[in-house]
Amino acid sequence: MKENITQFLTDLQNTICAAIEQADGGATFKEDLWQHHSGGGGRTRVFANGRVIEKGGVNFSAVHGQTSDALVKQMKLSQKADFFATGVSIVMHPQSPIVPIIHMNIRYFELSDGTCWFGGGIDLTPHYVNTADACWFHGELKTVCDRHHAEYYAKFKDWADHYFYIPHRQETRGVGGIFFDYLKPKGQTNNTAAEALAKTKDEIFAFWREIGESFAPIYVHLMQKNAALPYDETQKQWQMLRRGRYVEFNLAWDRGTKFGLETNGRTESILMSLPPVANWVYDYQPAANSPEAATLAHLKKGIDWLSDSLRGLGF
Amino acid sequence: MKENITQFLTDLQNTICAAIEQADGGATFKEDLWQHHSGGGGRTRVFANGRVIEKGGVNFSAVHGQTSDALVKQMKLSQKADFFATGVSIVMHPQSPIVPIIHMNIRYFELSDGTCWFGGGIDLTPHYVNTADACWFHGELKTVCDRHHAEYYAKFKDWADHYFYIPHRQETRGVGGIFFDYLKPKGQTNNTAAEALAKTKDEIFAFWREIGESFAPIYVHLMQKNAALPYDETQKQWQMLRRGRYVEFNLAWDRGTKFGLETNGRTESILMSLPPVANWVYDYQPAANSPEAATLAHLKKGIDWLSDSLRGLGF
Repeated sequence: MKENITQFLTDLQNTICAAIEQADGGATFKEDLWQHHSGGGGRTRVFANGRVIEKGGVNFSAVHGQTSDALVKQMKLSQKADFFATGVSIVMHPQSPIVPIIHMNIRYFELSDGTCWFGGGIDLTPHYVNTADACWFHGELKTVCDRHHAEYYAKFKDWADHYFYIPHRQETRGVGGIFFDYLKPKGQTNNTAAEALAKTKDEIFAFWREIGESFAPIYVHLMQKNAALPYDETQKQWQMLRRGRYVEFNLAWDRGTKFGLETNGRTESILMSLPPVANWVYDYQPAANSPEAATLAHLKKGIDWLSDSLRGLGF
Repeated sequence: MKENITQFLTDLQNTICAAIEQADGGATFKEDLWQHHSGGGGRTRVFANGRVIEKGGVNFSAVHGQTSDALVKQMKLSQKADFFATGVSIVMHPQSPIVPIIHMNIRYFELSDGTCWFGGGIDLTPHYVNTADACWFHGELKTVCDRHHAEYYAKFKDWADHYFYIPHRQETRGVGGIFFDYLKPKGQTNNTAAEALAKTKDEIFAFWREIGESFAPIYVHLMQKNAALPYDETQKQWQMLRRGRYVEFNLAWDRGTKFGLETNGRTESILMSLPPVANWVYDYQPAANSPEAATLAHLKKGIDWLSDSLRGLGF
């Protein structure tokens, strides 16, 4: 199974890079192979100065070794063990403020004692919230989730709302999406709530695979729909401030980034998530009733993007 | 004493703002008064788009209340108490890559059980390390330290090297300076090493005051010496990357920033430390023997900036 998962992820990286290159049409990925100090390594692919994407990365890694003290603590393990961790991580920062930033991560973890789990998610960070796009995006994720478990979308959408939250700004990073972690096979979970969501390992793999496969069609659609729309200098400035918030979330709050930086991960692969340029202006307040203020009003937890009222709003 | 300390800090904020405005000549500070949720508040002064300084802040705060759970944990207190905390914090991001970024913080803390301590420091972050300036800067700090305790400079210089360190880059933030914390009056310390450095409360206050008073002459000198020097687009780009590192340190590693953001401090005052613009380029490597590579070689712990060999190097 481990080999199947790794093979799936390297294929997925290839497919996604090809789809992004084709949709962008202005640049190609640059590849770096690297090795991890404990064993294994990765294939980082970065993209810069495209027609649509200004900076982005599609990273694959498959790392193994003995669990460090930090990992034992983070995973609440009773003792050291050998681990295997693999995943694909993506962040895309577009040129245009009208095209949303996107992030995807899917990861798989197993220990030498036989326990294993899947994690992942996709979330969207528009510089300007386009209600129709956000509704469509959530609808696509719900469709994938619903094919596997009636409760997945609601649970994982809520999890994303809480995970991608910037406490010191009292804002969500964007319009969310889905986020899940520690998805363990039936019988391996340690509480009733987790067991209610649990499925066989094959079934979880099938769900997780579909999330990974949904990324390219979703983002290519959003690129194609929005990349040619005009924008002005005010919108570009707002994009730079929103990228500042993206940096704040990733460096100050994102548990994945923090864990990577604290455990001697490959810095350049972890921080490929940062934008090419970001701005900070002291106490910037958008004008009342501006599109920027409307966006802030949508950066809240608990918005039901699939409600009839939001679906009807459009742009 | 509490009133004397607060009065000193508000006067110091005035003096420093006046000195920066005069040396800059192109802009004035904008002031925001604010209140803290637990009691007290602050006077934030920010500076933008000057001739020499692109973005900066000189913040005063004096906050009191009951220690939160986070504070009890951070301070390793045995129980809740009333606290009083006051300080001045400064960060200056200059327009020119030839002028260094500077940071100063001096703070005083006391608890209702009668314990109190002083903390603070000044550190310099040149985009390009100018050895003569770094030596001069350390010499000025040593002169102030030496007037108060023969061991202060060596101890506090080492403390700054370790505090202003970016583990995931294996770089110091800049050329350091001095950093000290939990400087308690003689008899209030809880270990022999701290007791060896301890002085009376009046004596610590006198030292700490002089550190605060040294800021304006030090930075005005560095502004005047460097602001008119020419620079090119390559140097400006490097400045943007070094500002990216400044953001990485402040958001991911700085304990003061982290504590402020996690305990519901005033976000805009805490994050005034961030630069107006910062860039990230995947895996940027300066050319061999370039001025940028020479700078990286100086971003190391343990450099003796007062050694004869360095003092003689010049720019």
